[in-house]
This record gives sequence, structure tokens and C-alpha cells, in this order.
Amino acid sequence: MAAVRHRRARRLVIIGFGPVAARLIDDLRPAVRDRRLQILIIGAESEPAYNRIMIGEVALGRTDPEMLIMSDPAELRSDGVDVRLGTAVIDIDRGRRYVTLGDGDQYAYDQLVFATGAAARAPRLNGLRVQPGGTDPVLPDGVAVLRDLADASRLRSMTGPGRRLVVLGGGVLGMELALTAAEEGAAVFMVHTGRVPMERNLDGIAAGLVARHLRRRQVTVIADAQAADVRLESGRFAALALADGRQVAGDALLLCCGAAPRTTLAERIGLSVDNGIVVDHELRSPTDDAIFAIGDCARIRCADPSCDRCAPYTGPSGLIGPGWAQAEWLARRLMADKPTAPLDAGSGNAPVMIVKAPGLSIVSAGRIDSDPLDALLDDDASTPGVAQWSDPEHGRYAKMITRDGALEGLICVGMPRTAAELTLLYERRAELPGDRSALLRHDGPDHATVADPAGPEVTICRCNGVTAGQIGAAVDEGHDDIAAIGRATRAGTGCGTCKDRICELLNNRAKVVMA
Amino acid sequence: MAAVRHRRARRLVIIGFGPVAARLIDDLRPAVRDRRLQILIIGAESEPAYNRIMIGEVALGRTDPEMLIMSDPAELRSDGVDVRLGTAVIDIDRGRRYVTLGDGDQYAYDQLVFATGAAARAPRLNGLRVQPGGTDPVLPDGVAVLRDLADASRLRSMTGPGRRLVVLGGGVLGMELALTAAEEGAAVFMVHTGRVPMERNLDGIAAGLVARHLRRRQVTVIADAQAADVRLESGRFAALALADGRQVAGDALLLCCGAAPRTTLAERIGLSVDNGIVVDHELRSPTDDAIFAIGDCARIRCADPSCDRCAPYTGPSGLIGPGWAQAEWLARRLMADKPTAPLDAGSGNAPVMIVKAPGLSIVSAGRIDSDPLDALLDDDASTPGVAQWSDPEHGRYAKMITRDGALEGLICVGMPRTAAELTLLYERRAELPGDRSALLRHDGPDHATVADPAGPEVTICRCNGVTAGQIGAAVDEGHDDIAAIGRATRAGTGCGTCKDRICELLNNRAKVVMA
Repeated sequence: MAAVRHRRARRLVIIGFGPVAARLIDDLRPAVRDRRLQILIIGAESEPAYNRIMIGEVALGRTDPEMLIMSDPAELRSDGVDVRLGTAVIDIDRGRRYVTLGDGDQYAYDQLVFATGAAARAPRLNGLRVQPGGTDPVLPDGVAVLRDLADASRLRSMTGPGRRLVVLGGGVLGMELALTAAEEGAAVFMVHTGRVPMERNLDGIAAGLVARHLRRRQVTVIADAQAADVRLESGRFAALALADGRQVAGDALLLCCGAAPRTTLAERIGLSVDNGIVVDHELRSPTDDAIFAIGDCARIRCADPSCDRCAPYTGPSGLIGPGWAQAEWLARRLMADKPTAPLDAGSGNAPVMIVKAPGLSIVSAGRIDSDPLDALLDDDASTPGVAQWSDPEHGRYAKMITRDGALEGLICVGMPRTAAELTLLYERRAELPGDRSALLRHDGPDHATVADPAGPEVTICRCNGVTAGQIGAAVDEGHDDIAAIGRATRAGTGCGTCKDRICELLNNRAKVVMA
Repeated sequence: MAAVRHRRARRLVIIGFGPVAARLIDDLRPAVRDRRLQILIIGAESEPAYNRIMIGEVALGRTDPEMLIMSDPAELRSDGVDVRLGTAVIDIDRGRRYVTLGDGDQYAYDQLVFATGAAARAPRLNGLRVQPGGTDPVLPDGVAVLRDLADASRLRSMTGPGRRLVVLGGGVLGMELALTAAEEGAAVFMVHTGRVPMERNLDGIAAGLVARHLRRRQVTVIADAQAADVRLESGRFAALALADGRQVAGDALLLCCGAAPRTTLAERIGLSVDNGIVVDHELRSPTDDAIFAIGDCARIRCADPSCDRCAPYTGPSGLIGPGWAQAEWLARRLMADKPTAPLDAGSGNAPVMIVKAPGLSIVSAGRIDSDPLDALLDDDASTPGVAQWSDPEHGRYAKMITRDGALEGLICVGMPRTAAELTLLYERRAELPGDRSALLRHDGPDHATVADPAGPEVTICRCNGVTAGQIGAAVDEGHDDIAAIGRATRAGTGCGTCKDRICELLNNRAKVVMA
């Protein structure tokens, strides 16, 4: 006797429509088409998911916003997904399981996923009113944060050639924007609290290279500076006043003070929140087993502090790769009839910090606080190994800190290919070649001969976990440019740092075919 | 009408029979055979010229003295050269132009060449009686210097497995002997005045690598030590007492305190002497135009302090190459009927210091006092460039200090092929490749593919000025091992550091022929 299916389709509500939510829906679309699942996705912005990593380019007029869009609502709707854009969830009734939107609409759910991401963190300054979570400041004219497309468009109107731009913050975003704006012709003043920009991620030589680069690009750096007041004239930004009394005048102020998980709603409905919505290693809230969280808003940490499966998670990384991995795993978990393989925790290595600014590439990860002389003087088996290449004249620097032959930390400045190779080795905890200097040649003039040294199993796109072998197969199937390979394999569609390597693989493949 | 030749052959006396004198005779032998020249050579030692660089190997029983001999008196005599060994010149009558030997024999000369070399410099210690020049100490039993074969044989009887050897001096010779003796099983104590051995030739990381190497090889290093007294028991060395009261007991004391030009005789006969026998850029004494000096006993410096041709000479280098070049030039000069091309002054770069000890290769030259951070902070066009590779875990270190792209100084530890390449580039003042890290790969696993990068004009044997092209030609003529190539071209017969490269050229040639 055939089974008769009368069950109502499960109702899933997803809050947030960034790249992580988009990946979750993508992977659930077959279930929507099969009527096993109903999905409602609610995005607070008017655009669907877009590649936030490129947002600085939009803010400075180098890329159109449309180029960043990663999802097509019309296509989703044609599959039966209910997409609501430009509206926020204002309340959730966890007992009766329904959400209330800003326009008063209410939707019932069986399961709910938070994918609210992170918001720009605003500093506490006189003249800015900031929400309790330290995010979503009320900004006067001439003051901007940069997190979403609306911010980018706001900033676009505030800067340009000849304008004076004050950048508050010496982190990755501050660096990238300061250098890009300077290249566009703005007079840029970078104000930051450390001795040097990105102090925690750089050692002395790397910091010196960065400082010199900023100087040569005419970015004025104001270090060791505590911002105190935003001074307005006629309601508009006029100057940033420092605690020591100095004032940095400008046409616009850009706050680059990091991001914080967007958790206001989760807190209000009583979920456990601690620098992110707390979820277990199955991405489920310990407070409510109908609720999940993924991506930058989630903090993976079991109630059991000794849980092995949670141990590798050290907090939101700010990278897209882990969020996508969580989305893919949750899609499998939600639709599985039987237990799913555990979520891959990754190496547990600290996240990789990547700066791509005009004329400057910086990668830093893990522990960076050893130098060769320390390693030499402390001649002890437990001391990490340190290998270091410094060529400041050519703006090049690489440091590899190893334990048992595998990377525990790295810094690369001005050596993007070496950085990409070291990042792969770091994330895989792979053993380095005995002759560490062999790794430097990726940025040498004959790099093409060593560009593909490790065979098809090497991960090329870290955001999407795509290997050289998978890209090669896509090339063989006739996908013959970067965009086509991105559509076929997703490689290169995340942070984009692997596009050079994809290009090399395309070229090498072409040579092999022609030979 | 044919010219009738009745002129008496010119009489040349050469004092000293080291490798430089041997080269001079070699180049003059055609003139001796033609009866245009009579030569008397007087060697104070009982052996003819030998390769002094290998003497430590003899002292420690690793090589037989015969293996070092570089000249055959029987062959010279068959050509008509008068060879006197084991006797010294005790006086010279410059007015009447004759020399008096220790046995009372007297010989007239038309021209006289000093090639007396250098002698071990002995420190001023209670218990040692030293000559006014600081050389030729009267040594008690159990105390040795190491400069000639007699010293080597003396030292050989004093050390060995289980013996305690005190080495005074932390220079090149002290390092090499301490490590070699330790490898032979002696308990070695190295006493030196600096903070670290070879302090002037090493920077912090290189010194740290050297210190660690000595520690691992069980050489006890006593730094910052002022030696004061040689303590004897029953007329034999018992301990070296330091100025601070400490005593370093041992079975033997080896004095490695450098060398000084051997000038006692020249001073006595009234020649101008100033840290060497002063000669002009034609190698002639300003005091007496019948007298020349070459090699380690000579100091090239004109009366005219602004003389361009003397400017590059910075004093005796302790290397064999410059002495050989002087011998070759003087041979041409003495026999020429017309003016000779000027003596090649070389690059004028400071000499290269080379240590080849068990498990440790060190090369240092020129200015080494900059580091990448200095170069970076002092962002000025006149600041030299510094590129640096440090991998202390693998005992590897290279520093390149450049001006206008050419080396002004270098240090290499544990990277002998890189060191050889950098030394060539340093001596030629050649421009380095823009990607400095390309130079490191000479010591990489795939070095064979880059071993011969610069074509046939590259000098391989620096002591003899033999190029890759000349060695290649010798291989093509059928000289198919190192010894045969040495006989055909002289390559590899000096300090021997180029033998590895000659081997590579042989192998590469073989591959090309077989392919």
C-alpha cells in the first residue's frame, strides 16, 4: 500500500537576507520545490543578499551596487519562497511561534533561523547617540559608518577629490578605506588608538611597512589618539576632537570601529546572548529548540564548557567562509531524516585578517609575537619556530611561526601569492616544506612554474571550499572565464582573494591543452 | 744583420716560498728556460709552497701534509730555478745588492721580491716571550700557534680525543679549530674578548646561531675574557689565567689571535714598513726601486695619498686571490719590454670572511650593521637597502645590504651556495635581482636547476679568477674530475670553497651531453 502524504509542509522563517541566509535558502530550494518546506525570508534592507566585502568599492564609486548582488528574489519566488525586503521583524512570540513584522503582518513558524549578521560598532563619543548594544548610532550629517549599501551611498556623497575625510579606526576597514579614498584624491586623516594601525595584527616590521605606505600615499596618521567629541557646525560634521584637546577638522567623518553581532531582537525575546546569539554545535539555541542562528550573529558555545565539538570556535571571524559552511550544514540538518555528520569545526585556528588596499596587501593570522632572535635565544623544544623574510626596500615581508612544522601564525605584507599559499597551509595545519624559503617564490618572477604545486586536492577558494581539482573539472566542462567558474563552482564569489589563482589555473590548463 | 745577445741574464731573488711566490715563479719559468732570467727562491720552511688554508685539517689529523703541497722543487730546478729551503735571509746589502743567508752564502740580485707572508700574532701574556713585531713567540710546551706545517705537527701532538684544549681567540681560525677539535673528541674551551665570537663580522642573529652551534657541539665559550697569564706546571701548559682571576685549565693552549705581516727583515734593512712592507701600485718599494713585495707581507699605498690606483687597497685581506693576482701581474711587469696594464685593484670591497667548520658555514663581508627595521624607519634614499632571511630552526640566515641594488655587505650562515653566489655578486658589485628572495633558492632542494644562472662569464673560482666558461671548456677538452680541472685551469686549488660549484658544472655538462 502506497504511503499517502497529507502532512502540512514545515514552515521555516529566516530573519536576515545576507550571503549566509542566501546560501541556506539556495540549499533548501529543492525542498521548497518539493513542497516539503515553506520558507519566509525577511530582509531589513531593500536589496537581497550582496557581497559586503566589496562595499568599500561602492562607497568610493569604483563599483556599482548591482555588481554585488548575490541572490535573485524573482527566482526564489518562482520556486515558492516568500521574500520580504525592506522590513524588519519587530517581535517574536516564542510560545505560539509567530513573528510580527514592522508593517504588522504576522507569520507562524515551526523553525526560525537568525541570520541577522553584524552591525557597525559605533564608539561612545559626545555628539553621537548609540544604542545599548553599541551599534546603530544616530548619525549627524557628514558622519558615516560603512556596513551596508545605504551606508555606502551615504559615504559616496560625503567624500571625493579634494575633500577632507577623517577616518576613525586603524583596523582593516579603516586602512582599506583610507588608502582607497586617498587614491581617489581625498585628503585623509586616520585617527586611531594604537601606536600603529592594526597594532594587534602586525609586528614591528610589518607595522613599519604599513606606516611607510600610508605616509607615501599621503594619509596623515594620528596615532595614540582618544577620540572624544564629534564637533558639528550648523548640524554638520566639522571636526573630531581628541581627549588631549587636539581637533581634526574635515568634511566627513567615517567611523571604522569594528562590527558587533546584531542581537537586539534575540535579547528582547529572551534568548541567551553573549557577544552573539548563543547556539550549540548543532546551531540551536539552548533557550528554544525551534530557533537556530548562523553566521556573524551566532556564537557557537555549548552549555557544557568541556564540549569538544564547540572548542574550536573562538567567536565570529568576520569571514564569510565559516558562515557559508554553517548554512550548508544547517540546510542538511533541517531536511535530514537521520543524524547528520557533525558540523565541520575547521582547524580551530584563529581567523585570518586580510587587507586589500591600493598598493598594499596584508595578511595576518594567529600568533605573531615571536621573532627569530627570540626563537634562537630561547633554545627549547617547546619554542615555536620562526622563519622571516624582510625586504622593506621592495615592500615585502613574510613571517611564518610554526610548531611541529605547521603554521601557528603568519604575517605577509606585499606578497599576495605567498600569503595565499601560507593561508592555505595555516588553515589546513599542513606541514611546511623544510626549506621555508621555497614558499617565498610564489611572489617571484617565475611564480607560474610553481603556482600549482600541491595537486588537485588543494583548496583554492577558501570561502566556498573549492579545490583546484573541482575548478579544473569546471574548465574541462567548458567554463572558461572567472565568472563562469564562479557560477559553476562558487569559487571566487566570496572575498575574491583567490581570483588570481583561479586565473592561473585557467592559464595553466590552457597551456596544457595547447601543448 | 742579426742582433747578437751577450747580455747577462737578470738575477731575481725571491724571499719566501708560499703559494704567492710559487705563482710568481710559475709565471716566470718560461723566462728562466729562455735564459733571460735567473731565479733564486729562499724558503725558511723545509717544505715548498703549500695550501695554508687546509692547515687546520693537518693539525687535527684529517689530512696528510703532502696533500697540501702546491709546488715541486725538482721540477723548478730542472728548469734552472735555484731553490733553497729551510734557510732564512739574515741580511741584505741594498747598496751592493746581495743577500746573506743563515749559512753564510751570499747571492747578488738585480731585483728582489719579498713574499714573506704573515706570521701568527701572539698576544702579550705573562709566560710568553714575544718579538717586538708581536709575532714569533717563544712557546712553552703545550702552547701552540697555527700558521705553518711545523705548528700543525706540534698541535697534532697536543690534542686528541679526551684532551682538554683551550682555544684563545674567537675569530675564523679559533672557530674552525674549536669545532673541528670538538668533533675529534677533545673537550674544547674557547676564550675570547668579545661578547660573542667573531663579534665584528656577525650581527645579532648570526651571532646567536654561532653561539647555539658551539653549545650544541659542546664547545664551552668563555666570553668577555681578558687572558692574562699562561700558567705552567713543570714547564708545561697547565691553565690560562684570566684578568678577573678565573683559570681555564687544559692540556694544551692554542693561540688564535690573528696574523701580522712578516716585516722584521724589511725593517732592519731600512725599507718603509707600516703594517706591511709599503709598495706603490706597481708593487715597488718607495725606498728602493730594486725591491718589490707581494702577498700578505705587502701594503700597497703610494706616497701620494690621493692616488686613485692605490685607493682600493684596504690592507692585506688574508685571502689568497689578491696575492696570486699580484704575483701574476708582477711576472708580466718584470719581463715586459713595454708598460704593462695596471694591476687590477679589484672592487675595493672589504674582504670576505669565510668559516668552514664542521656543520657550520659562515660568510661575512663589508658593512653588516643595518637591519630591515632600521632601513624602514630611516626612509631616506641614502639609507642602504636590507633584505634578510632568518630561519634559525634550520640554522639558516642570510642578510644582504645593498646600495643602488649592489651588495655593500652580506652575512650568510648555514647557506653555503647562497653565500657563494652572494660573494660573487659582492666582489663584482653586480646588481641583485629585484626579487632578492630568488637568491635563497641556491640552497633549496631544487638548486640544481638554478646552479648556473648567470652564464659562462661568471667567476667560479675566486682565488684564481676562473670563469664557468673556462671550466666548461676544460670539461669539453676531457678534464672530467675536480683534480683534472684544477690542473688545467687552477680552479678549486685555492680556498676550495668553489669545489661544490665545479662539481655542479661537471654534472650539468654531463647531463647536457647525455641528453
